[in-house]
Amino acid sequence: MMKNNSYILNRIKSIQSFLKINNLDGFIQPRSDSYLGEYVPQSDSRLEWISGFSGSAGEILILRNSAILFVDSRYTIQASNETKKTNIKVVLSSNISLIQYIIKNSNTLKNVAFDPWLYSLAKIKYFLSFEKNTILKFISLKQNPIDLIWVTNRADAPKTIIKKHIIKYAGICAADKIKKLCLNLKTLNAHSYIINQPDAVAWLLNIRGSDLEHTPIILTRAIIFNNKKIYLFIDQSRITAKIKDYFKKEITNIKIYPENTILDIIKKIAKNKNKILINPSTTSYVIAKEILKINKNNIIEKDCPIELMKAIKNKVEIKGSIKAHKKDGVALSQFLYWIDKSKNTNNSELLFSNTIDTFRSKQKNFICTSFETISGYGSNGAIVHYRVTNNSNKKIKGNGLYLCDSGGQYLEGTTDVTRTISIGKASIQMKKHFTIVLKAHIALASAIFPYGTTGNDLDIIARSPLYKNDMNYGHGTGHGVGSCLNVHEGPHRISKGSFTLIEPGMITSNEPGFYLENKYGIRIENLMVVIKISDRNNKNMLGFKVLTLAPIDTKLINYNLLTEEEIEWINNYNNSVYKNISVYLKTSNKNWLKKVCRPFK
Amino acid sequence: MMKNNSYILNRIKSIQSFLKINNLDGFIQPRSDSYLGEYVPQSDSRLEWISGFSGSAGEILILRNSAILFVDSRYTIQASNETKKTNIKVVLSSNISLIQYIIKNSNTLKNVAFDPWLYSLAKIKYFLSFEKNTILKFISLKQNPIDLIWVTNRADAPKTIIKKHIIKYAGICAADKIKKLCLNLKTLNAHSYIINQPDAVAWLLNIRGSDLEHTPIILTRAIIFNNKKIYLFIDQSRITAKIKDYFKKEITNIKIYPENTILDIIKKIAKNKNKILINPSTTSYVIAKEILKINKNNIIEKDCPIELMKAIKNKVEIKGSIKAHKKDGVALSQFLYWIDKSKNTNNSELLFSNTIDTFRSKQKNFICTSFETISGYGSNGAIVHYRVTNNSNKKIKGNGLYLCDSGGQYLEGTTDVTRTISIGKASIQMKKHFTIVLKAHIALASAIFPYGTTGNDLDIIARSPLYKNDMNYGHGTGHGVGSCLNVHEGPHRISKGSFTLIEPGMITSNEPGFYLENKYGIRIENLMVVIKISDRNNKNMLGFKVLTLAPIDTKLINYNLLTEEEIEWINNYNNSVYKNISVYLKTSNKNWLKKVCRPFK
Repeated sequence: MMKNNSYILNRIKSIQSFLKINNLDGFIQPRSDSYLGEYVPQSDSRLEWISGFSGSAGEILILRNSAILFVDSRYTIQASNETKKTNIKVVLSSNISLIQYIIKNSNTLKNVAFDPWLYSLAKIKYFLSFEKNTILKFISLKQNPIDLIWVTNRADAPKTIIKKHIIKYAGICAADKIKKLCLNLKTLNAHSYIINQPDAVAWLLNIRGSDLEHTPIILTRAIIFNNKKIYLFIDQSRITAKIKDYFKKEITNIKIYPENTILDIIKKIAKNKNKILINPSTTSYVIAKEILKINKNNIIEKDCPIELMKAIKNKVEIKGSIKAHKKDGVALSQFLYWIDKSKNTNNSELLFSNTIDTFRSKQKNFICTSFETISGYGSNGAIVHYRVTNNSNKKIKGNGLYLCDSGGQYLEGTTDVTRTISIGKASIQMKKHFTIVLKAHIALASAIFPYGTTGNDLDIIARSPLYKNDMNYGHGTGHGVGSCLNVHEGPHRISKGSFTLIEPGMITSNEPGFYLENKYGIRIENLMVVIKISDRNNKNMLGFKVLTLAPIDTKLINYNLLTEEEIEWINNYNNSVYKNISVYLKTSNKNWLKKVCRPFK
Repeated sequence: MMKNNSYILNRIKSIQSFLKINNLDGFIQPRSDSYLGEYVPQSDSRLEWISGFSGSAGEILILRNSAILFVDSRYTIQASNETKKTNIKVVLSSNISLIQYIIKNSNTLKNVAFDPWLYSLAKIKYFLSFEKNTILKFISLKQNPIDLIWVTNRADAPKTIIKKHIIKYAGICAADKIKKLCLNLKTLNAHSYIINQPDAVAWLLNIRGSDLEHTPIILTRAIIFNNKKIYLFIDQSRITAKIKDYFKKEITNIKIYPENTILDIIKKIAKNKNKILINPSTTSYVIAKEILKINKNNIIEKDCPIELMKAIKNKVEIKGSIKAHKKDGVALSQFLYWIDKSKNTNNSELLFSNTIDTFRSKQKNFICTSFETISGYGSNGAIVHYRVTNNSNKKIKGNGLYLCDSGGQYLEGTTDVTRTISIGKASIQMKKHFTIVLKAHIALASAIFPYGTTGNDLDIIARSPLYKNDMNYGHGTGHGVGSCLNVHEGPHRISKGSFTLIEPGMITSNEPGFYLENKYGIRIENLMVVIKISDRNNKNMLGFKVLTLAPIDTKLINYNLLTEEEIEWINNYNNSVYKNISVYLKTSNKNWLKKVCRPFK
């Protein structure tokens, strides 16, 4: 999808005029909106509007006579394509990051401006630390210059209505969550906590919405006081009578304020010398600054206390996730059967993508997909964050590997699953690579480890079989997953450098992969919940229970490379898929599933 | 070996009198001497003299009317035995540490005194941080009260002569090491570095000695200046004409000072406003204090810059280690053959211990054992830090497991090896436990991992097979090993919490185990050197090359529990033992070795 790039040129020029008029040398614009999350509505996709680049991560530096777009290794090719003929220079951020670039040019850059809503306190503090040894100043702007010129053809900010996430799905009522959180705040000596993350608000108040394409939340902020009082910052029009009633009955102490009043209210709170808790990495600089202006001792910087509460799923959420994964498994079994039977010469990545999305959407309590489906055949499968477009859409025919990473938001929970499927006949090398990735997947799925283990510690368990075979993958091994919330959720990850303890009730993905550039991609991803292993001499031992229920393609397995234990794991896994899913399938689909799930040996 | 405990009582009472006279509430005495290392000569074993406790780690708090000895879980039983009838209370430090105990009683403890030579700067800083919220003060003493009363029957401090560690074994001459270290110091903006660790001095100057029973070093300190000048603090009588000549020729800039002049000299250096580097964890508080008294900005606190240089062995040291391990392997093969043939009814832990020590001592360039041999049969094998005494000495007969952990200091390098041997007939459970420990050992030995991996990351690779079988071990998986130096050497360890990068040339032990209390202990320990795996697409991949050459007892293996890869590893390993060692053995011993090393299947 080629952008009309003369527009881009003009937009950049407008910003450059703004710089000159205001005696500024540069302006920086990140991908994120003021919620600083991964997901941005169309109305706030300023980076895409100003640069043409549509990837999920990146940052542009606009100088008076040039513009430099910083992206990570996933996006260099896409960014170059999307910014063609715009004079924007694309730079790989691991070679030189935006801040390194600014420092390197600090003899010619006296000041660089930023929108203080779009950067966290932590990030700006980091930037400001470089002011010490240079003449450089970072300038916090009252208004984003992009907003000054992006006036026509700008989508409205999403304003969907609040829906209640009922106790049947939430497991714990809002009042109990608030009570526990307030105990936490008191322990931290915090008078109040500013919640800048919409999914944290959604979890705490048991509310959902449709502000984002793939995440059932409302873009909103809140302040919670340690006496259980809550201020919610949202347009009154989004609160129906039913929700008003819910608030009145169940969250008695809630007050609704217009979105744009938050800074004034924070100023008031801070004036009373109250200690206010904020998470410096997820709270906009402009919010923190409001407190710091009054008294820097009023601020307590800590991780979000909601994050861990939210990550450790309650029993109802875990049961819900199991249910959601059964429905997801049905859709996937229908999809995989459809692929197997489909002799359509029009088979393509787009058709496949639409097909899995359609099967999933027919499941009860389905809300939306949990992210844009990744549907890549052959070389497209090797692009880790591939999204099929009309331009890139490959026919699916001949011999090759098809990689499909998809997920759904259900009222009962959120899913995320990747399967790699053999189309035609697989080569010996494909089978070897698939089998090694499978070994990695099994190694993590069957790991047993003591309380005290971190995602950092577990990461190497999955990677070891790949390392031995001169393979690896350039992404994390696992991420947390919300409950009818963000498909990527903290605080835990299974990844080098993640030192959060893994605790029972946490949901994580298990997604080792292997990508042979210009050839094919392999990824096998299940979601799993952390469980306590009881009945042991060693107390406090943990393990995983697999949630995802979709057959693993045994046509791609070279059984000679597997140990007996590994073969047993696959046999058991595919058997449990059949046992849990078959009853929901039509006979022909059921028979097909029985065949593909039959044990080896 | 029961101590005469009335002596202990009187000694404690003397300290308590000292406390009363000096208006002190408490005195703390650790195990270490002023070099703060693991190894302490008899003349400085104050903790043992005052408490009777002879373990390698512990700390006593003597109050006016009581005395509390803090030990870790390895030593609770031993400490209780050794302090019987002394009124000393033994406390498990993981339940309550010395400092926690002091803080808990800070309403009655106004001051606690310590010998500032015996505690590091880091430790005392940590102690002092607790002064803030209490009335408690920590008092630095001019003289250790134990030294005031321990006057008769005290061994002289070791005063062995300096020997040169020739280039044939050291690989790099002292001048080159000094040059490189000085470049390091300049990068750190340090004018000088105070070396408080005798093994660091030994490595840097290529000198050795016999001050300790199991480590061929001289107990000495040095100061190195970034212009390559060196002050060595040692009695002139310990420097022979030959060494004088060596210093003159090869370390031209060295000056010798009496040991007790170091504080005066540090004072002089600090007065010149020079930045002095110290390692806060390995430098006595009294030394750091001398600098801090003058100007706290004069001190740079960093890890010892020698430690990493020393840990990464040069080519000559690695070749030397291979040679040392061949000799060690010969001694071990002789010992294991001797065990197999020995029908002596007097077989005992002591006889076995003396026998391996004797075989090893006959090897060329043998200096001493690298630690006191652990020789435990049956339940004694389950005591991780067991040392056989006349009292504990078990007969070795019937059916059981014999665990032998031993090592040697050779001019070419240092060894450390553990083998677990079946005596009589092994039970099914013993075989299972041994085989699982072997799986753990193989998992680590055959791991392949990228540069950037830490000992923390590798630890779980060894533990995983045990975790799956409801087993574990209460010690680290591996430690660094010196080259004709300390058998335990930093900075790397294979252990949870060790975040030093593993680098090519590092030597580490691989010693998973399993201990069934009152039954038996299993440990399989080899030394390995970290190597670069070349010939790969993934650059910078590392692995291990095993150094130790001693047969693994295949009578204890349940092959059904092993994968084909694991069986292949054992076959290859035992085969390489035979190939490397057999030529040095007499025919009967050689034939025996061939038999025990023959491959499975």
